[in-house]
Amino acid sequence: MSSTFGTHFRIHTFGESHGGAVGVTIDGCPPKIPVSAEAIQLELDRRRPGQSEIVTPRKETDTCHILSGVQDGVSLGTPIAIIVHNKDQRPGAYDEMAAKYRPSHADYTYDAKYGVRALSGGGRASARETIGRVAASAVAKEVLNTLAPGVEVLSWVKRIHDIEADVDPATVTSEQIEANIVRTADADAAERMIERIKEVRSAGDSIGGVIECVVRGCPVGLGEPVFDKLEAELAKAMMSLPATKGFEIGSGFSGTLLTGSQHNDAFFMEGDKVRTRSNRSGGIQGGISNGEDIVFRVAFKPTATIMKSQETVTSDGEDTELTGRGRHDACVLPRAVPMVDAMATLVLCDHLLRQRAQCGGFPHT
Amino acid sequence: MSSTFGTHFRIHTFGESHGGAVGVTIDGCPPKIPVSAEAIQLELDRRRPGQSEIVTPRKETDTCHILSGVQDGVSLGTPIAIIVHNKDQRPGAYDEMAAKYRPSHADYTYDAKYGVRALSGGGRASARETIGRVAASAVAKEVLNTLAPGVEVLSWVKRIHDIEADVDPATVTSEQIEANIVRTADADAAERMIERIKEVRSAGDSIGGVIECVVRGCPVGLGEPVFDKLEAELAKAMMSLPATKGFEIGSGFSGTLLTGSQHNDAFFMEGDKVRTRSNRSGGIQGGISNGEDIVFRVAFKPTATIMKSQETVTSDGEDTELTGRGRHDACVLPRAVPMVDAMATLVLCDHLLRQRAQCGGFPHT
Amino acid sequence: MSSTFGTHFRIHTFGESHGGAVGVTIDGCPPKIPVSAEAIQLELDRRRPGQSEIVTPRKETDTCHILSGVQDGVSLGTPIAIIVHNKDQRPGAYDEMAAKYRPSHADYTYDAKYGVRALSGGGRASARETIGRVAASAVAKEVLNTLAPGVEVLSWVKRIHDIEADVDPATVTSEQIEANIVRTADADAAERMIERIKEVRSAGDSIGGVIECVVRGCPVGLGEPVFDKLEAELAKAMMSLPATKGFEIGSGFSGTLLTGSQHNDAFFMEGDKVRTRSNRSGGIQGGISNGEDIVFRVAFKPTATIMKSQETVTSDGEDTELTGRGRHDACVLPRAVPMVDAMATLVLCDHLLRQRAQCGGFPHT
Amino acid sequence: MSSTFGTHFRIHTFGESHGGAVGVTIDGCPPKIPVSAEAIQLELDRRRPGQSEIVTPRKETDTCHILSGVQDGVSLGTPIAIIVHNKDQRPGAYDEMAAKYRPSHADYTYDAKYGVRALSGGGRASARETIGRVAASAVAKEVLNTLAPGVEVLSWVKRIHDIEADVDPATVTSEQIEANIVRTADADAAERMIERIKEVRSAGDSIGGVIECVVRGCPVGLGEPVFDKLEAELAKAMMSLPATKGFEIGSGFSGTLLTGSQHNDAFFMEGDKVRTRSNRSGGIQGGISNGEDIVFRVAFKPTATIMKSQETVTSDGEDTELTGRGRHDACVLPRAVPMVDAMATLVLCDHLLRQRAQCGGFPHT
Repeated sequence: MSSTFGTHFRIHTFGESHGGAVGVTIDGCPPKIPVSAEAIQLELDRRRPGQSEIVTPRKETDTCHILSGVQDGVSLGTPIAIIVHNKDQRPGAYDEMAAKYRPSHADYTYDAKYGVRALSGGGRASARETIGRVAASAVAKEVLNTLAPGVEVLSWVKRIHDIEADVDPATVTSEQIEANIVRTADADAAERMIERIKEVRSAGDSIGGVIECVVRGCPVGLGEPVFDKLEAELAKAMMSLPATKGFEIGSGFSGTLLTGSQHNDAFFMEGDKVRTRSNRSGGIQGGISNGEDIVFRVAFKPTATIMKSQETVTSDGEDTELTGRGRHDACVLPRAVPMVDAMATLVLCDHLLRQRAQCGGFPHT
Repeated sequence: MSSTFGTHFRIHTFGESHGGAVGVTIDGCPPKIPVSAEAIQLELDRRRPGQSEIVTPRKETDTCHILSGVQDGVSLGTPIAIIVHNKDQRPGAYDEMAAKYRPSHADYTYDAKYGVRALSGGGRASARETIGRVAASAVAKEVLNTLAPGVEVLSWVKRIHDIEADVDPATVTSEQIEANIVRTADADAAERMIERIKEVRSAGDSIGGVIECVVRGCPVGLGEPVFDKLEAELAKAMMSLPATKGFEIGSGFSGTLLTGSQHNDAFFMEGDKVRTRSNRSGGIQGGISNGEDIVFRVAFKPTATIMKSQETVTSDGEDTELTGRGRHDACVLPRAVPMVDAMATLVLCDHLLRQRAQCGGFPHT
Repeated sequence: MSSTFGTHFRIHTFGESHGGAVGVTIDGCPPKIPVSAEAIQLELDRRRPGQSEIVTPRKETDTCHILSGVQDGVSLGTPIAIIVHNKDQRPGAYDEMAAKYRPSHADYTYDAKYGVRALSGGGRASARETIGRVAASAVAKEVLNTLAPGVEVLSWVKRIHDIEADVDPATVTSEQIEANIVRTADADAAERMIERIKEVRSAGDSIGGVIECVVRGCPVGLGEPVFDKLEAELAKAMMSLPATKGFEIGSGFSGTLLTGSQHNDAFFMEGDKVRTRSNRSGGIQGGISNGEDIVFRVAFKPTATIMKSQETVTSDGEDTELTGRGRHDACVLPRAVPMVDAMATLVLCDHLLRQRAQCGGFPHT
Repeated sequence: MSSTFGTHFRIHTFGESHGGAVGVTIDGCPPKIPVSAEAIQLELDRRRPGQSEIVTPRKETDTCHILSGVQDGVSLGTPIAIIVHNKDQRPGAYDEMAAKYRPSHADYTYDAKYGVRALSGGGRASARETIGRVAASAVAKEVLNTLAPGVEVLSWVKRIHDIEADVDPATVTSEQIEANIVRTADADAAERMIERIKEVRSAGDSIGGVIECVVRGCPVGLGEPVFDKLEAELAKAMMSLPATKGFEIGSGFSGTLLTGSQHNDAFFMEGDKVRTRSNRSGGIQGGISNGEDIVFRVAFKPTATIMKSQETVTSDGEDTELTGRGRHDACVLPRAVPMVDAMATLVLCDHLLRQRAQCGGFPHT
């Protein structure tokens, strides 16, 4: 379904960007997992507007409220509903949008699909929709911590425009990532990225880039053969985020330039553990985690909203022009990092429960 | 679920590569759609082994049988079961595999997940598993032809190793693609690709590449906001195919090097139709088709089975070596083209029915 | 999933009886359907406590708020979230319940399943959980009104304890049902039922009974063969309501005393419409609606909470006694009538969309 | 979906009664469960035609073949496909059926829904469809035996027409049930039932009755709150069987004649185990198993096919008459007993896996 994600740890999100509230209900959460508004707020704060000088200055505190499913700080096993009321609505800033389709936004396609659309704000196509995902992922993270301690999900900005960061997935830390407002773990690149974002913003333009993610300490055996391969689920998860244009895992697109003998990951024993010499598989083989680091990358296009005049059409079918207004991110990547974290965490948590259902535990031995 | 794909046009595949049969059941197929074993066989013949000099010489006719759901050449609306008996099993060729994990295959992860695995052949991780998908897609294709005439799904080899084909998604034809055994629509590149595959095969090695796909004539309004965005569903579909390492749509990874003003697709009116000047969105905006060509690319790694000695481990946890044997594709891409077609067709057909369910038709006007 | 109902018109409910709020999100609702808090409130008022002298005197206004998915009085096609804040919480009244399992309640089984449970109120096992269902059904009702005008869902109290009402499913009206506080359409029986409820309540005891429901004007062709037969879906829907112990459709249990020649519903033509002389099938044949009235009955046990001392055990495993306190219904049936209406409406709405998905419309001709 | 049952132990059935084959694929089966064609055949033999003098004399051996998912007698964790080829097709016997709708059958509703139907045999509405369910249940039974040893599912004929058997759910054995061809555990009643069936058959008529089922040794904690209550799932499972008209659990419809103080099941400690003095709840409270015997009853209508002339209409909309021909059961109950067993077993197995997914085991302590 459109607004449901997951098979067993299953989330349902709701809310337009300029409606009364956005939120999520989580069904299937194991009981007795620590859940607190504070832990959820920590994740929400990483994605909220106004958090630094390079993101949109909109003033949203994005304060979350837990409405159900939690008692005395632990989950009850019943649906957990989390809600964030919308505060900083400025319908006036969007009047023109009601009449004109913003290029490379979803205004036209929503209208074409439904015959109606949220006239103020981006509706469900706004990045605001990801609040529910991020809130749910804070709960999923605690499930991982409880059932599979040691799993670590870390994302960072790998590239902005043509500025690439030098980050080692095997050793990067959360502290290094959060050490700069652009959320990359390369201080030097971070500076240049910040400067580039400011330049582009001043020009009324926007830029995109690539986010990289590593999952360290993933149990062996997660993921399903055939359609629900772990990489397929991650790909869907990432490509469901706003502004994404590509996904690759392990060797990715550039791996296609190697031969099999160059590409294959040789197995060897490290004590009683099966390991691979290289990790071009990206931690997943046949759709199932093999215990090596899961490493993937996600492409984010430049923000569609720009402060320049663009050719477009009205909802009545007339050619016209539109100049972006309002307060937008010139580059979504710093705020997209927690979104990538969130979706990866949700996929892993769901597959952990699926593995318990079918095989009783993990690793299955 | 592991072996189920789709929400409304829903397929369930089964079968190990060396078991009794592989197949598929299709649930939710509209009634009175033309379905014939001949039409299904045509698609299966495009993916079967032994079809040309550059693919595996295994002799499998892959003859399909329709067991249910069809009467007098049309669908009944009830489940359509299609089965292909396995013929050319040579368990002997795989004895060593039962004891040793093939590098960059799924032997180890299946064992780790389930505590047991198909000891002969690749089980569900074999490309043979895709027979069910391709068979089902032949039915899905007829659903599209019936309900949304004019939709065309075409895939071709865009690159093999470092040899790139020059193909225009807007104009490429099925005939051009099928004109050469490598299934690219660039005769010159095809020759070089075939030569490269033969060289690599002689060396006991393997190569990969990129397949590109276009959907032309797609109705406006397909795809769902949020999690089941059309590109997210396509990404999952493609990343669920064996040997895939990456997916990108429209401008993809390289689009991240542009600014927003360079990247955005300006709208204009063409008669009473909303069109875009460029198509960096790849035919999908906000997860919903906008009527432009849907264009995406899929990375396939070099075949894991190579005829060279490789370091590996036994299932008992001993270091050892393994040299590939048997009859394998040195390059899967020619046979993967119909698989990409199949998965794209299945996604579109499913979303066509989803759109009918919620909005009653397409385009919604 | 536990708190999800429906395939295409899909609802997700949440909320413990004594938590912050109860509510529902609806996914898959067709766009441009009239949705208003007023229409939802009307249905909620039929199930709320304190509505008459024979139901629990708890003071809950059960005021609903629409948080998303609606603009200018119509649905947007995106998730509709509806919330009701809990007001009249008296945790003190339930202290004893935290320590002792109430007989024939869900306290013990929740503890056994989850290892934790809502200590105040009945949690998700409270009838308060049905608020989300009833709210969602008000939207589903408008979908039916819009897509299949003429469908009428009517439920009434058929029997309380041993007092049976004389009501004709073919002609009963909403006005007749709502004409008395017990919600039966037989004024004479209503009086006796009300008297009986008061007697039983005075004695600190409780009673149950049977609710009957008719769907008139149902399109032909709704329901799916095999597992999702319309009567199977209705049975699940009804048996998911608190306190239900039985479901029967058409001739039901007593039909098993007839022979086939007595039981079969002969077909005949009425103009160009296929009709049946009798309706022992209850409007459904082979799982699919046949256009006759759908008629079924649901058994509700006597309320588990009684004001008498009962043998029970503590959550620490000690034998003890418990006397019910608090404000409860001595008979749930008057308030269960809108719940039966709600679940029937949800099932029909969902199958209407499923029929559109697969067959494009209804009836399929 | 129409032909899918279960959330985690998930079956997909296919096949028309007079098509090439009927069968099932099982997805989500735990690995290393003993699975053999012999064990499946045992269950199929209990439901097959021609097994005794009181069932249809059609000659179908219903021989099953396992096509996938099993190696060396154990499940691989991948889909298990089981197929039964149709043998005794006599299309000629049904020619009249193609033109005339059989009263109280699904001919008309299938036509109305799909605009097409299987013209020979009952298609998916035939009891032959249950072969897939029964085959799958033989696998589910082994899952229960392996993961929750001690669970016993037993069904028997409780009543045929007005002849009621005296059977104690607490002590009845499989041997007692199978001791007579009518499958009741009351030898005296069995004789009278057999005689009645023969009489009715001689008269060209048919009869129905009630099947009772007990689940003994069910782990505490199975079933989900709210929509997927264990009794709701059982109700759906049973009402999805052909010819069923009613379902009741525990005290059922007659429990509505008691007061709460008469009806409630008092708790007491038996050692460290929580038990109930009575079992009017039928082993389920709040949708979750409480460890007591689960007891429910299912009403089956008299077989629709009778050898008498009946009023009906043609598919062209003309009034006409029809006299049943062919070889049919005058009473389906003896063959329906294994179907009830099958559906109960499938529900329990699925909820066992769901419980593992969310809570990690059972009972949760």
